[in-house]
Amino acid sequence: MKLLIIGSVAMDSVKTPFGKNPNALGGSASYAAVSASYFTSAKIISVIGGDFPARHIKIFKNKHIDTSGIEVLKNKRTFKWSGEYGWDMNSVNTISTHLNVLADFNPMLSGDDKKCRFIFLANNDPDIQLDVIKQVSSSNNFIAADTIEYWIKNKKKKLLRVLKQTDIFIINEKEARLLTSEANLIKAAKRIIAWGAKKVIIKKGEHGLLYMTKNRLFLCPAYPQETVYDPTGAGDTFAGAFLGYLASLKRVNERAYIKALIYGTIMASYNVEGFGLDKLLKIDKSLIQKRYREFTRSVRF
Amino acid sequence: MKLLIIGSVAMDSVKTPFGKNPNALGGSASYAAVSASYFTSAKIISVIGGDFPARHIKIFKNKHIDTSGIEVLKNKRTFKWSGEYGWDMNSVNTISTHLNVLADFNPMLSGDDKKCRFIFLANNDPDIQLDVIKQVSSSNNFIAADTIEYWIKNKKKKLLRVLKQTDIFIINEKEARLLTSEANLIKAAKRIIAWGAKKVIIKKGEHGLLYMTKNRLFLCPAYPQETVYDPTGAGDTFAGAFLGYLASLKRVNERAYIKALIYGTIMASYNVEGFGLDKLLKIDKSLIQKRYREFTRSVRF
Repeated sequence: MKLLIIGSVAMDSVKTPFGKNPNALGGSASYAAVSASYFTSAKIISVIGGDFPARHIKIFKNKHIDTSGIEVLKNKRTFKWSGEYGWDMNSVNTISTHLNVLADFNPMLSGDDKKCRFIFLANNDPDIQLDVIKQVSSSNNFIAADTIEYWIKNKKKKLLRVLKQTDIFIINEKEARLLTSEANLIKAAKRIIAWGAKKVIIKKGEHGLLYMTKNRLFLCPAYPQETVYDPTGAGDTFAGAFLGYLASLKRVNERAYIKALIYGTIMASYNVEGFGLDKLLKIDKSLIQKRYREFTRSVRF
Repeated sequence: MKLLIIGSVAMDSVKTPFGKNPNALGGSASYAAVSASYFTSAKIISVIGGDFPARHIKIFKNKHIDTSGIEVLKNKRTFKWSGEYGWDMNSVNTISTHLNVLADFNPMLSGDDKKCRFIFLANNDPDIQLDVIKQVSSSNNFIAADTIEYWIKNKKKKLLRVLKQTDIFIINEKEARLLTSEANLIKAAKRIIAWGAKKVIIKKGEHGLLYMTKNRLFLCPAYPQETVYDPTGAGDTFAGAFLGYLASLKRVNERAYIKALIYGTIMASYNVEGFGLDKLLKIDKSLIQKRYREFTRSVRF
């Protein structure tokens, strides 16, 4: 396995103006792993309850995703999230969040897991993220981390310790502003680099993204999306493809990061065109390449 | 003269959180002409009152801008605009607008004016824009037009007739949505092309721009701006540089449009770094080239 994803596996119930999708496969690790599976072999570290449907596990198996790190707590229930989007798909109204098994999530990595080159710490309690970082603690690992507003507000100090130890920190523009108290995203990115993250990606949704290292700034427009059915999981889909593409390479140079950003953009663009993981599960490599070429044509000088 | 600019010359009083700038040189034609002057020879067609300060005319002369098309109505007052920006510089609070001489603006083009290859119809009453189009009416002219919300709301039919006859229609995202009733900017751009504009630029402020022709879509991020002192005139500065660069070329191909978009972006980025025209008047060609190289490095794949 080349990409280890530590995050949630959930049952999502999403409603949008176009319909609803109850108890669908969701969770940060699910989106990231399915997205990554088009580029590399991925393994999920997560926890589910006895109520988790076999058909969801089958989805992972069909994509050759290693599920041996998904602990099953038979007498407990799976993490469940329910949300609703209005016509403005930039923000979601969370109807309910039942952590269930996730409340006791305590990821233990195997010897092989620890040696995995690429590690994605999807959104999680910074204490758990720090614990995983401690377990791997090899300079050979490339660690990417994501977070959400809740942790910025409630565990900022711990989160900054995570950030300091990540090779790439991935957040959205709202989170970046909140974390750094900088309205200007260039200044926010510089602050994050100054705090110790080697690289940072600030996702701006329909306005693309900003990628910064100590020596470089790269601005990437979003895919010119005409239809958005359900934006759930777009960020994790982006991260999964970004890391999955990098993990598929023998050598990673600066050019590879740019290509990875574009693959992330492309996969996220497919993801939002269907409910939950529906569209992401239907595409193939040739469709990905087609959109990759189309997109690079529209942004290349 | 290679670029003819038909628009307003004003006295602007602007207040931002960083200070104020009363009775400064303003107006769409002023910004566009000063910006264009770094690339080509420009001429302004406009009207001013007897109160217009000689020092403002001197600014044009210093930039070798042809002012012979600026009519002076000695007994009347110049167009005056006053506005205030808060910390969110994306929207302005207009304090007052005194059209004065502009209420009777009735541009008459000379024989030479009519032969000018590049013509910029800055924001104006669509009836006036149509009248100018009628005066030039040569297939050798390249006509660019801009507008504002007011005309979309009050003279949409006439505006659509302008649009139909323009080689490039330049508007911002809010105006594009209002004009086309499409929330999605790709769909809005397609609609504008379907209505007859040969090319369209939709400006997204800090999120860059979208350029579309029948056969092409190009997405350009904004310059990664860290400081904004006063965004007044950014759109006209963009248009002036875009057209000024094109007018400076012997032959205009598709690649030239992309370069022109970037020069427009760069000039607008300088413009917002000072009050009114202050910064734009202080830069030189080497600074423009420096930022052009810097920007293309940060967006090139």
